[in-house]
Amino acid sequence: ARGRIELQHGGGGRAMTQLVEELFVAAFANPALCALNDQAVLPPPAGRLVLATDAHVVSPLFFPGGDIGSLAVNGTVNDVAMAGAQPLWLAAAFVLEEGLPLAELARIVESMARAAHAAGVAIVTGDTKVVEAGKGDGVFITTTGVGVARDGVDTGGDRARPGDAVLVSGPLGEHGIAVMACREGLAFDVPVRSDTAALHGLVAALLDAVPAAAIRVLRDPTRGGLGATLNEIARASAVGMQLREAAIPVREPVRAACEFLGLDPLYVACEGRLLAVCAPEHAGALLAALRAHPLGQGAALIGHCVSDPQHCVELETVLGGRRVVDWLAGEQLPRIC
Amino acid sequence: ARGRIELQHGGGGRAMTQLVEELFVAAFANPALCALNDQAVLPPPAGRLVLATDAHVVSPLFFPGGDIGSLAVNGTVNDVAMAGAQPLWLAAAFVLEEGLPLAELARIVESMARAAHAAGVAIVTGDTKVVEAGKGDGVFITTTGVGVARDGVDTGGDRARPGDAVLVSGPLGEHGIAVMACREGLAFDVPVRSDTAALHGLVAALLDAVPAAAIRVLRDPTRGGLGATLNEIARASAVGMQLREAAIPVREPVRAACEFLGLDPLYVACEGRLLAVCAPEHAGALLAALRAHPLGQGAALIGHCVSDPQHCVELETVLGGRRVVDWLAGEQLPRIC
Ligand SMILES: Nc1ncnc2c1ncn2[C@@H]1O[C@H](COP(=O)(O)OP(=O)(O)OP(=O)(O)O)[C@@H](O)[C@H]1O
Ligand SMILES: Nc1ncnc2c1ncn2[C@@H]1O[C@H](COP(=O)(O)OP(=O)(O)OP(=O)(O)O)[C@@H](O)[C@H]1O
Ligand SMILES: [Mg+2]
Ligand SMILES: [Mg+2]
Ligand SMILES: [Mg+2]
Ligand SMILES: [Mg+2]
Ligand SMILES: [Mg+2]
Ligand SMILES: [Mg+2]
Repeated sequence: ARGRIELQHGGGGRAMTQLVEELFVAAFANPALCALNDQAVLPPPAGRLVLATDAHVVSPLFFPGGDIGSLAVNGTVNDVAMAGAQPLWLAAAFVLEEGLPLAELARIVESMARAAHAAGVAIVTGDTKVVEAGKGDGVFITTTGVGVARDGVDTGGDRARPGDAVLVSGPLGEHGIAVMACREGLAFDVPVRSDTAALHGLVAALLDAVPAAAIRVLRDPTRGGLGATLNEIARASAVGMQLREAAIPVREPVRAACEFLGLDPLYVACEGRLLAVCAPEHAGALLAALRAHPLGQGAALIGHCVSDPQHCVELETVLGGRRVVDWLAGEQLPRIC
Repeated sequence: ARGRIELQHGGGGRAMTQLVEELFVAAFANPALCALNDQAVLPPPAGRLVLATDAHVVSPLFFPGGDIGSLAVNGTVNDVAMAGAQPLWLAAAFVLEEGLPLAELARIVESMARAAHAAGVAIVTGDTKVVEAGKGDGVFITTTGVGVARDGVDTGGDRARPGDAVLVSGPLGEHGIAVMACREGLAFDVPVRSDTAALHGLVAALLDAVPAAAIRVLRDPTRGGLGATLNEIARASAVGMQLREAAIPVREPVRAACEFLGLDPLYVACEGRLLAVCAPEHAGALLAALRAHPLGQGAALIGHCVSDPQHCVELETVLGGRRVVDWLAGEQLPRIC
């Protein structure tokens, strides 16, 4: 049993304390965490508070371009960032399955620590629970992020207006395909890697490039992909959208894998892309700002919002036809994040 | 399959949106949540921020006196409260197992909503993931709490000094025994109910009763019980402790169940009790304040901190002997919270 998670590691006694101190706290080291109180006490943030949470249950735990640890950090950083906010702190809660190799857990924890360090956020508090073998699946990680929003910034999904431009920061579907391909054991000529990345730096660059009010909506197209996300915005803002298929960036290996798997890339999850809806007169500046940033080099203006009582998202296909991008459609991929 | 959780409910499409809106958001209703953005945007809190997280994996999901939902709210409220803080907001992330009856989930969600309402906190953001049957266990809930700490209040575990008094707010072990008895199918003459409760009101009463600096440490004796918690404090503060067994409140049915199950009540989890270490000259006032509150009626002064280079927690037994309350000892109960 040595070298594996045991039920003891979740019991509140010595085994748990040792695991927490020698693995988690050692990797995440920062003053708030190291106090090991029941909570982290943090300086008062200067501005509106932003709070986001995501459980991560991705399977497999490791995939090309990332793992559940980096994903859990970046995913929550991104939901905080989509408020136009600066992420500051993370809480991380682990549900470990009895029998999980400690070496695997250590790789995941180190990956989280690296991702947090790269994103400039501190993991300030945590929790460790263990469930019996067969009652979990290796490890589930829930991260909750706290950030502070810039004054005057409001990127809520209800702010899109007819005429606004719709931009994406890069090619779609890479995370979902990387995980699916890994799970299904597919091998591609050009391997697809997850796009998992922390986007708050990109968001800050956008806010520096145009007046805050010009940025109407920011959102990361995770589960459900572009299709679900645009439909959510269309519904919340009571607008329609007209997209040009030819303008939507999808890399060739992703397109090929989607065809093979019977998926529509418009519904496949990204973990390092954002959608921006913006005032049309600032679309050029915003696109330039996106492309000037390492994480936005593949950015594109993919369409516009229109007045439409049906709040329909429509696509002009490459062949000149029109089709509805229904948010009901699209295969829903399980355990992708 | 109708009436049960399906993988679809975690896919990011229509089934998930419907579940989130019709079940979770309907039950937790508040403006920050109802915006359904990627995050909650909240007013700037006036003071130091407090952040706590706990995953809840208790088995069974329902037990005498509570369920995973009320536990998930109260548990995190309490970790925030132990900083002497006012809990304000919760995030809640759900990992649902395919096949979970929706009616069971609804009972849990309604219990959470009631507990949050009773505690005066709002569940402002959430997440919903689904794992395949056999990869989870009904439902796991991670709650993360945000609160604001009163100025001048510091209840960190490193502040106990020799001479300080050690108080508990009520009888020990009721939560752990309620869950264990339910799991093992034991029936007691006097049934034991979980003590799960939100303690921030009690904490506020304590802070109103004595000078803030008189309260050295606050902690809720959850997993590992009194034994683990006092040892953590002794270690962090570099003091020893002398307890009087006769003064430690344990109700008779708990004592009987512990005997039957071969457990030591000193190591059994509470979910509605707190430990306070305080300056000796204020111990009387603090005990009176505890007893004046509905959640502190069974409070007791159970011992004192002493100077001890070994940081040993010692018990004077009812028979006049002495024994060490080791934090290594004690059966570690799995899946108790
Ligand atoms: N996986 C983890 N990563 C980082 N820190 C952790 C982790 N697990 C626990 N901790 C830290 O260890 C300390 C003790 O955590 P623990 O969960 O025992 O406290 P608690 O929440 O008060 O108890 P319980 O979970 O039984 O309610 C806390 O400071 C917590 O932040
Ligand atoms: N169980 C839940 N309880 C309360 N609110 C929820 C719950 N699940 C989701 N929500 C809310 O629904 C909205 C959409 O959540 P969702 O998880 O789809 O967003 P996301 O985190 O941006 O996407 P992803 O989880 O794919 O990264 C958010 O406003 C979120 O707060
Ligand atoms: Mg605690
Ligand atoms: Mg997310
Ligand atoms: Mg905990
Ligand atoms: Mg998002
Ligand atoms: Mg706790
Ligand atoms: Mg989410």
